[in-house]
Amino acid sequence: MSVKVGIIMGSQSDWSTMKEAAEILDELGVEYEAKIVSAHRTPDRLWSYGKTAVERGLHVIIAGAGGAAHLPGMMASKTRVPVIGVPVQTRALSGVDSLYSIVQMPKGFPVATMAIGAAGAANAGLMAAGILAVSDADLAKRLDDWREKLSASIKEEPEDE
Amino acid sequence: MSVKVGIIMGSQSDWSTMKEAAEILDELGVEYEAKIVSAHRTPDRLWSYGKTAVERGLHVIIAGAGGAAHLPGMMASKTRVPVIGVPVQTRALSGVDSLYSIVQMPKGFPVATMAIGAAGAANAGLMAAGILAVSDADLAKRLDDWREKLSASIKEEPEDE
Amino acid sequence: MSVKVGIIMGSQSDWSTMKEAAEILDELGVEYEAKIVSAHRTPDRLWSYGKTAVERGLHVIIAGAGGAAHLPGMMASKTRVPVIGVPVQTRALSGVDSLYSIVQMPKGFPVATMAIGAAGAANAGLMAAGILAVSDADLAKRLDDWREKLSASIKEEPEDE
Amino acid sequence: MSVKVGIIMGSQSDWSTMKEAAEILDELGVEYEAKIVSAHRTPDRLWSYGKTAVERGLHVIIAGAGGAAHLPGMMASKTRVPVIGVPVQTRALSGVDSLYSIVQMPKGFPVATMAIGAAGAANAGLMAAGILAVSDADLAKRLDDWREKLSASIKEEPEDE
Amino acid sequence: MSVKVGIIMGSQSDWSTMKEAAEILDELGVEYEAKIVSAHRTPDRLWSYGKTAVERGLHVIIAGAGGAAHLPGMMASKTRVPVIGVPVQTRALSGVDSLYSIVQMPKGFPVATMAIGAAGAANAGLMAAGILAVSDADLAKRLDDWREKLSASIKEEPEDE
Amino acid sequence: MSVKVGIIMGSQSDWSTMKEAAEILDELGVEYEAKIVSAHRTPDRLWSYGKTAVERGLHVIIAGAGGAAHLPGMMASKTRVPVIGVPVQTRALSGVDSLYSIVQMPKGFPVATMAIGAAGAANAGLMAAGILAVSDADLAKRLDDWREKLSASIKEEPEDE
Amino acid sequence: MSVKVGIIMGSQSDWSTMKEAAEILDELGVEYEAKIVSAHRTPDRLWSYGKTAVERGLHVIIAGAGGAAHLPGMMASKTRVPVIGVPVQTRALSGVDSLYSIVQMPKGFPVATMAIGAAGAANAGLMAAGILAVSDADLAKRLDDWREKLSASIKEEPEDE
Amino acid sequence: MSVKVGIIMGSQSDWSTMKEAAEILDELGVEYEAKIVSAHRTPDRLWSYGKTAVERGLHVIIAGAGGAAHLPGMMASKTRVPVIGVPVQTRALSGVDSLYSIVQMPKGFPVATMAIGAAGAANAGLMAAGILAVSDADLAKRLDDWREKLSASIKEEPEDE
Repeated sequence: MSVKVGIIMGSQSDWSTMKEAAEILDELGVEYEAKIVSAHRTPDRLWSYGKTAVERGLHVIIAGAGGAAHLPGMMASKTRVPVIGVPVQTRALSGVDSLYSIVQMPKGFPVATMAIGAAGAANAGLMAAGILAVSDADLAKRLDDWREKLSASIKEEPEDE
Repeated sequence: MSVKVGIIMGSQSDWSTMKEAAEILDELGVEYEAKIVSAHRTPDRLWSYGKTAVERGLHVIIAGAGGAAHLPGMMASKTRVPVIGVPVQTRALSGVDSLYSIVQMPKGFPVATMAIGAAGAANAGLMAAGILAVSDADLAKRLDDWREKLSASIKEEPEDE
Repeated sequence: MSVKVGIIMGSQSDWSTMKEAAEILDELGVEYEAKIVSAHRTPDRLWSYGKTAVERGLHVIIAGAGGAAHLPGMMASKTRVPVIGVPVQTRALSGVDSLYSIVQMPKGFPVATMAIGAAGAANAGLMAAGILAVSDADLAKRLDDWREKLSASIKEEPEDE
Repeated sequence: MSVKVGIIMGSQSDWSTMKEAAEILDELGVEYEAKIVSAHRTPDRLWSYGKTAVERGLHVIIAGAGGAAHLPGMMASKTRVPVIGVPVQTRALSGVDSLYSIVQMPKGFPVATMAIGAAGAANAGLMAAGILAVSDADLAKRLDDWREKLSASIKEEPEDE
Repeated sequence: MSVKVGIIMGSQSDWSTMKEAAEILDELGVEYEAKIVSAHRTPDRLWSYGKTAVERGLHVIIAGAGGAAHLPGMMASKTRVPVIGVPVQTRALSGVDSLYSIVQMPKGFPVATMAIGAAGAANAGLMAAGILAVSDADLAKRLDDWREKLSASIKEEPEDE
Repeated sequence: MSVKVGIIMGSQSDWSTMKEAAEILDELGVEYEAKIVSAHRTPDRLWSYGKTAVERGLHVIIAGAGGAAHLPGMMASKTRVPVIGVPVQTRALSGVDSLYSIVQMPKGFPVATMAIGAAGAANAGLMAAGILAVSDADLAKRLDDWREKLSASIKEEPEDE
Repeated sequence: MSVKVGIIMGSQSDWSTMKEAAEILDELGVEYEAKIVSAHRTPDRLWSYGKTAVERGLHVIIAGAGGAAHLPGMMASKTRVPVIGVPVQTRALSGVDSLYSIVQMPKGFPVATMAIGAAGAANAGLMAAGILAVSDADLAKRLDDWREKLSASIKEEPEDE
Repeated sequence: MSVKVGIIMGSQSDWSTMKEAAEILDELGVEYEAKIVSAHRTPDRLWSYGKTAVERGLHVIIAGAGGAAHLPGMMASKTRVPVIGVPVQTRALSGVDSLYSIVQMPKGFPVATMAIGAAGAANAGLMAAGILAVSDADLAKRLDDWREKLSASIKEEPEDE
């Protein structure tokens, strides 16, 4: 069976953030591929990734980028496969630039935008799993378990450290 | 067959924004229900909506709210059904408050956040369709057509009005 | 006599901020309980905490949370006991996300919002004491003393360090 | 019995916002006084209002102001009576200036800050009532009823207008 | 001689802003073409425009877009012809989203960003002329004249209107 | 001759910023006094400082504060002596809260606001000197010299460090 | 006797804001001149205005500008005469651009920055008068009267309109 | 042949940012000069630099500055040579002040604004090269090569570090 989730990012430096998505997918037993696809430095790679996404069997694409973050939105313009966007935190503007560049898409091309940074990347993995779980009862069960375990891990009272 | 998409919103006043989502789903032939579910005024309604979402057969929930917009995130905490969040524009802060309240979710509970306002609501409808299209070839075809028609509608040159 | 002040927070990591509230209450001789109540990870805990607040004799609830901070507002929707909200500072957005998520509540469900971070948590303790002092002359006296001591501690001239 | 709630505001122009607080108190049967107390134009009025608040029997003070909004914080420095702050919306900065000037109080002098504008003013009335209700069972009952009526007023489905 | 300046924009609605650039070029006697090239709705048009820009003899490209404004940056990734970006004002975020999406480009792909809105569009025309004037003495003279006339038009004293 | 410049600040912790003002005044041979005057913790000190400013011979007051920074504006309400405000940098909001609380004064009570932080404090010293220099030719000469020396210190070319 | 206050502004369109300063000076019996001095369109006018300010007898300069507002800061670099800056409100960024461009001056060149817009312009007039009043007892008296009249005009209670 | 690119900056401290521009020009074999030209501390240097720019043969000016960053815009007012502006990152406002002061130029005086900080400085070098390449085929070839090498350097997959 082909890989259903693609994790793409604008540069190697985004990987420290985006691997949070990969780790969640690992925990949930969801296969994925991870690629560097730079909207600006490798636009043709973006093009062919987007054009072949459906035929290659991708069901969800997770795209992370920072600054003038065009990767998620441009990918959404090239394929109807749902695109989840992760705004990577930036040095000067803390990722507000990334967030606005990803979330403020015009009518026609939605990007499912997550929180800025690592929490957003982890949630991108969970959202991808949730989308696949719509038609995969086993994964739905694993996702339910993951969520229950998270809830169960919360102590009743805070502790001094 | 049961309705697969739920559109919920915090108040009647959000409907003028959220019906953009409904109109897109109408265009794409996707059935939906539209409900007012206020996180603060009807929390028990939120609870039971979230708890029964899976068994009622919902595959996607679109949730719109403004200001301290807790509806999308609280719904995401109550069900594994993917939640798409629409930040409704607000008077004082233009929807930045709505956006931050929706998008900045902690690890564990993703909300697929759209643009602020009407464009975001329309895109929520398209994202919902894109998620359903993963396992519905006919809808995938209609979505492809919708996108092609949108692209084809763009004139080559701007015109004075 | 039952405990009148509840300090709740979204996660263990908020405790380093929220214990400032606890310390103020200790200084003023006000009993309190401290609990972790995550709006998203333990929504049912939030529900039952809110529903039993009045009968358990709580007079004030201090709620701290960060990011898409839904805990204070959701608690305010579940009980008429006054809720004081503390926006915990966050990494990417410095707590502006927390602040907007807490303060911008719609008509019907006020949250008494404090400053971002530690100063806000300490002030939450003082506000709780001030509310109790309305009907507790002894506490009112202790609060007056605390305030006078603070004022008296201010030197006339700044000193090089 | 003396009036327990004082509504003060920086100028006549704030009244269109602040009367939302007055109307809520009217609905809940809570007596109040409404005064113009400008931190900058009538500082001595502020001084004597703060100094006599306890002895005059005030239990809560609601203070609204816009721009460099110093009234709520200065009042909090003059009395231990709990102060609720309402950031009035402003022309250039939409009330973000008011919000920051009110909420970011240093340790020692909390202001219970509400949302920007009319919703915040209405909520100030509700918060004042909630504080009084701690030791007034009749008012607690009326507040519960008010909240239930609000919840009951929410329709199940949105309507086209 | 071929047209040296291309004015492109994301949609027809941007033309009311972007024609300010066209009018400046008209005043300066610089030929241009004006096209709608939507990054998201007509990505292939963007591709071919960028790929053929050099061979078609374009010396400068002016690109205007709003919201998640990807057109200028994506064009910069497809051609070495200098790209001038105009952030179009938007409804919810006033063009701050457009500005951040355009100006915060990563190393490798500069976009010469102008002010938000009409002034920025007019200045894009002037910047384009300034670039051409580097190797066109006649245009340099016309540009100098335009600037002198602007300076000469400034009255000494303000007048009541 | 009496001291003509008062430097006041909200707390000891502001001194590391505010002593930049003192150092400039030392360099220019202008006498000053430095006091801690907390708007919230020592309001009566603020009151008496403001009320006696004219009779004590103060010609300029430099006031620094952070967060909900009410000191400069409240001082401006108590005396017609020109008040120069310095927004001290803060942890969560970087001094934007201080800036808005100081600069956005209503009609009637100007505060001459400087840049956030140390540069602003130094400039407050220079502005105070500039105001005194209006009627002090010797100081005017020293200020001119200070400015010329600053300009002369700028190297022609940058140097690697 | 020569005019002691210069009001300058970047363009005719700033006059509707800046005449608030003129009106205050009229009320206080302070003579002034009003000129258009554009930093960008008439830089040489700025130069000569700054260079002759001292010898022409100016004691204070009020400078208003909007957007990338360079006039106040550049004037401060050309003369030691105190410069009061007024950030004019702008269309896209509401004057935050003007504010930052004026207030964030580097060490060496203070600009006494006022609030954004009309209130700031009026306050610039008052600040100018306050500076002159340091060495003009008659003006000091008129300024005291103006302030007292303002305070006396504040009603005790708000009125419905 | 004369130097065609001038790199100017407001102070020595900007050099650590601005040398990124110099390094790019070195890589591309473009000669340049680097000067400190402070808008406020050496306004006359700015004046003469701008006035002689055309006759000295400059084709592009790169100007970097931080805070109330007036250098790029003032240079644009003194010469028709295209000015590229680099907003240097600042301590309190992270360079948003620099960005607004540079990009929001009024009609008549464009500044080609780059991203905040080091990436923006590097891109200023590339934009300068792109402008010169319009009439320099050899440089155009080198710029094409530089861009291709950058694209070729992007790995297919991210690597753990």
